[in-house]
Amino acid sequence: MQKKIIQNGTVTSPKGYRASGIVAGLKRSGKPDMGLLVSDFPATVAGTFTRCVFAAAPVLLDREIVSAGKNVRGVIVNSGNANACTGADGYKNACEMGRILEEKLHLNVREMLVSSTGRIGVQMPMDVIRKGMNLCCDALAVDGGSIFSDAIMTTDTRPKTIAYEFTLPSSGKTVTIGGTCKGAGMIAPEMVTPDGLHATMLCYITSDVSASQEVLQAALQSAVSDSFNRISVDGDMSTNDTALLFANGAADASLQSAEDIACFREVLTDVAEYLAREIVMDGEGVTKFVTVKVTSAASDSDARKAVNAVCNSLLCKTAWFGGDPNWGRVLAAVGYSGAQFDQLKVSMDYDALPVVRLGQDAGTPESDLADVLKNREFTIHVDLGCGTGSYWMYTNDISYEYVKINAEYYT
Amino acid sequence: MQKKIIQNGTVTSPKGYRASGIVAGLKRSGKPDMGLLVSDFPATVAGTFTRCVFAAAPVLLDREIVSAGKNVRGVIVNSGNANACTGADGYKNACEMGRILEEKLHLNVREMLVSSTGRIGVQMPMDVIRKGMNLCCDALAVDGGSIFSDAIMTTDTRPKTIAYEFTLPSSGKTVTIGGTCKGAGMIAPEMVTPDGLHATMLCYITSDVSASQEVLQAALQSAVSDSFNRISVDGDMSTNDTALLFANGAADASLQSAEDIACFREVLTDVAEYLAREIVMDGEGVTKFVTVKVTSAASDSDARKAVNAVCNSLLCKTAWFGGDPNWGRVLAAVGYSGAQFDQLKVSMDYDALPVVRLGQDAGTPESDLADVLKNREFTIHVDLGCGTGSYWMYTNDISYEYVKINAEYYT
Repeated sequence: MQKKIIQNGTVTSPKGYRASGIVAGLKRSGKPDMGLLVSDFPATVAGTFTRCVFAAAPVLLDREIVSAGKNVRGVIVNSGNANACTGADGYKNACEMGRILEEKLHLNVREMLVSSTGRIGVQMPMDVIRKGMNLCCDALAVDGGSIFSDAIMTTDTRPKTIAYEFTLPSSGKTVTIGGTCKGAGMIAPEMVTPDGLHATMLCYITSDVSASQEVLQAALQSAVSDSFNRISVDGDMSTNDTALLFANGAADASLQSAEDIACFREVLTDVAEYLAREIVMDGEGVTKFVTVKVTSAASDSDARKAVNAVCNSLLCKTAWFGGDPNWGRVLAAVGYSGAQFDQLKVSMDYDALPVVRLGQDAGTPESDLADVLKNREFTIHVDLGCGTGSYWMYTNDISYEYVKINAEYYT
Repeated sequence: MQKKIIQNGTVTSPKGYRASGIVAGLKRSGKPDMGLLVSDFPATVAGTFTRCVFAAAPVLLDREIVSAGKNVRGVIVNSGNANACTGADGYKNACEMGRILEEKLHLNVREMLVSSTGRIGVQMPMDVIRKGMNLCCDALAVDGGSIFSDAIMTTDTRPKTIAYEFTLPSSGKTVTIGGTCKGAGMIAPEMVTPDGLHATMLCYITSDVSASQEVLQAALQSAVSDSFNRISVDGDMSTNDTALLFANGAADASLQSAEDIACFREVLTDVAEYLAREIVMDGEGVTKFVTVKVTSAASDSDARKAVNAVCNSLLCKTAWFGGDPNWGRVLAAVGYSGAQFDQLKVSMDYDALPVVRLGQDAGTPESDLADVLKNREFTIHVDLGCGTGSYWMYTNDISYEYVKINAEYYT
């Protein structure tokens, strides 16, 4: 398969999409806070959503639409208000947002999806929302992908966007996948499909292939499992986590063979992986990007418990911020994770340097270990020495800046 | 029962105990870093210990001694080095520490318990330890409880010590319980008994009653379950968590009746509860003491999951530091905790103020909620509206100071 990154690629790089981003007035900062993404043709859609019991009103609505398996035409996204913990009124407002747009854009009922992010527990100011949606419709443009990415940001310091072009093996036709996402805090997604099989950040991926919802949903779930569901900034899962994947068929190319589907999944995973890494890299106050990998666990589930404990350990995260190789904190987290193993069989490496062998100091000079932690990116690899289970995740340090942002945050 | 707090009470307030605290030279700061507590008579002992797989060498040793059910004579405690993740050599060193003291104090084999706290992964400097232990023996004094409490501190800003005097209903005799503990970071104990039934901080409780190990162990486990196992400073369980309870019979009073035992347990729980609160109050960088209570959960286990999620949520803890009533973060944590409930039936209060009713804003002005968060102490009470399960824990905020301490910590 031939694939290439499209320079400055966005969600409007695939054929048949328009987008916009405007200032509705939801954010105190006066920055863009509403974005609209529309397909010119009815599109198949797949979605994964937060498993938080306090799932936000737009998540409840989108789950229904995606579950119904019907074609859709796009999504409206606002930042500045999460429409979560807003009860029946919140749900009515989410439905109302879709309905207003469907009318304005001459669409059928429930063809528009809705996403919200921002403060939890405040009812949507519907007057502001209505005016904003009108502005969004008027501003729709084939090169609107970039401003759309700007408009969905909250504490993000930069937009996150990418697009790939590739050829389908069966037909030789060129198709495109574009993606964008937002998220910098309250990041520990475990998104599941609408029927709860498995899925805060918001992510929108567009493509101009045609594909069945079944194929799309399986491809999205797989890509999300290996990307967004493997990142943790602060361990706090959101009420609004959503990833949507659209396929509108505008490239006049369908996924005809298992090979086509494999190629599509590969590129989709590249897009999701890039965007997930970007979220961690741009995490609130982040100075270090850390890959935590556990191998030779008794099971994949044990490996995951151990990885999760390290990624969510405040003591590990503050040590990384300080550049302190304090590996005892990593082992302590692995030790209380619930994973079962023999402490005298455990090894650990920081990048290529041995840190622990047989459960104790491997003898590498502390100054060498400290050098690894001076890098912006490094990998911590723990081998539990007892089985074939493995797991990995991306995470980051916790800095003064994180505390500052979250002690003072009020959109 | 008559009980009263002894002014400036310590672990040497009960009869028949001597203690000391000295500078061995383990800490770079030059502060006291080794303490010795000795009973003049063979004492029954009960213990609870960390369930971390990387349990430190002294924990492994103490578990054996407590499990064997034999009488002991005391405990040596060093700060500055945790003797954790130190393999077979670490274990040998822990045993060696006990043996040296037993010789020096003319005791039998395995009559001394050993505790360590401090940096993980570094072998004990046995020369320094030996000299320190000699100094400790020479300094033993009947009023040594206070200096003992000083010597076991790490990042604690103050010693934590208390003692109660009370009368046993059966005999009318007066007995005493004294206790001390240390701990300010890596605090999320879940201590279990040596046989793993259920138990970092270090805690030593002395009493001059005589009691069977069975009675002592049950009393300690119950007291620990309602105190130390209900506190979380940073969610990081330690490799060294230990609580020991001694009963040396020096008051010539035994627990003769169920009523005697009930009184003993009540005072023991008072001591443990006071010390556990002190750990949270003196937690690293702490500015807020928060009681998190969940009621009407489907089960106690669900309530505990919900309480744990809130107590370990970085977003909640930083909001408390900022004095931001951001209740959506609390609900989000409850929502991702794994507890099952209907979001539209949930209520929440901050102290006496209604915050959430039926899953949404209760309408109390935000400025009133902010006033509650200005207090040094407040309670967050979430009612899940679906059953009779309940749980509570003590926790705190996370401040710049916490990050500073843990980014720069190196004993």
